[in-house]
Amino acid sequence: MDRHLHLISDGSFSEQHLQIVKRIQAEIDYLHIREKNKTAKDILEIIGALENIGLPLEKIIVNDRVDIAVIKQCAGIQLAFHSPSIPLVKESFPELKAGKSVHSLAEAEQAQQEGADYVLYGHIYSSKSKANQQPRGLTELQEMTNALSVPVYAIGGITPERAKEVTAAGAGGIAVMSGIWQAEDPVQTVRAYRQALNI
Amino acid sequence: MDRHLHLISDGSFSEQHLQIVKRIQAEIDYLHIREKNKTAKDILEIIGALENIGLPLEKIIVNDRVDIAVIKQCAGIQLAFHSPSIPLVKESFPELKAGKSVHSLAEAEQAQQEGADYVLYGHIYSSKSKANQQPRGLTELQEMTNALSVPVYAIGGITPERAKEVTAAGAGGIAVMSGIWQAEDPVQTVRAYRQALNI
Repeated sequence: MDRHLHLISDGSFSEQHLQIVKRIQAEIDYLHIREKNKTAKDILEIIGALENIGLPLEKIIVNDRVDIAVIKQCAGIQLAFHSPSIPLVKESFPELKAGKSVHSLAEAEQAQQEGADYVLYGHIYSSKSKANQQPRGLTELQEMTNALSVPVYAIGGITPERAKEVTAAGAGGIAVMSGIWQAEDPVQTVRAYRQALNI
Repeated sequence: MDRHLHLISDGSFSEQHLQIVKRIQAEIDYLHIREKNKTAKDILEIIGALENIGLPLEKIIVNDRVDIAVIKQCAGIQLAFHSPSIPLVKESFPELKAGKSVHSLAEAEQAQQEGADYVLYGHIYSSKSKANQQPRGLTELQEMTNALSVPVYAIGGITPERAKEVTAAGAGGIAVMSGIWQAEDPVQTVRAYRQALNI
């Protein structure tokens, strides 16, 4: 099964991140530009820098800023609760792949019904970026993947070891932040993720 | 001459602002939704509320968020230095009226060359929102309106009394924030602006 590895930017995209992407780009399916405190101009500059190091636009998903995804003809858009709704986005930009970040089965079912091409669900395990929130766990993930026909990508505290049980619960793949950005050896780590997904 | 009156939201759009717009909507040409700290969803809700009180979408200009202007088929987009550039916006969304906020003749000439449909120039007088910056004055405004073929809308501390000298310097109209939002009688004030512009 072709499972996907999404790398999510951590809000502090820098030259260092760019160099990591340069080394691992062949191993990831998508890079999400999730830089909530950056301006449209900043995000366009990041995308330009990613193009310069050879990352194909078909691997880039932009968070929230639908206009940037359209302008740069990126792969898609990741929508949060504070973003334009999926029906509004799909009505104006039907060609754009639209994913929704969800936190419950009800939200996931609604997103699918509204036309989401996939959902990002988490956090599955406790993770650094959501330390004060109760993780949702594998049972809920299994329940969601049973209920949905669109891919569910699991996010939150997923290590290469845990990737196997996540895909066993039906996930179409995983989304990773610190697991890759903060890895001692990002190349080796991303290959470990990849290997776990391909089993 | 048909001069335009733009009302710019002040970043704290509320029910009170909505009630003011309801009372003065016939007298303004454009309302700019300039709510930098609000999310896309918030801005869409504001536009929905404006539609509900009868403001035509052809009077709404959205600041920075090109996607929202396209999704809601608003009149246009106002671009700042941190926004996507005019050529990028025009390439993907040629139907959208695009204005640029400028602060010098050089910036204004570049904006026109890049395809801006108008420029917003200021601040002309000292104003509450830019108290620590030197106002640019009428001489610079005259120089800009002489040099440009697209309309220059003047912003910054413009009272109904000053509107006359601003249009005498060639401005295609004015943009107002606190002059209307903080007016004791917004209806009377907006009529005074209107009258000054029609001379």
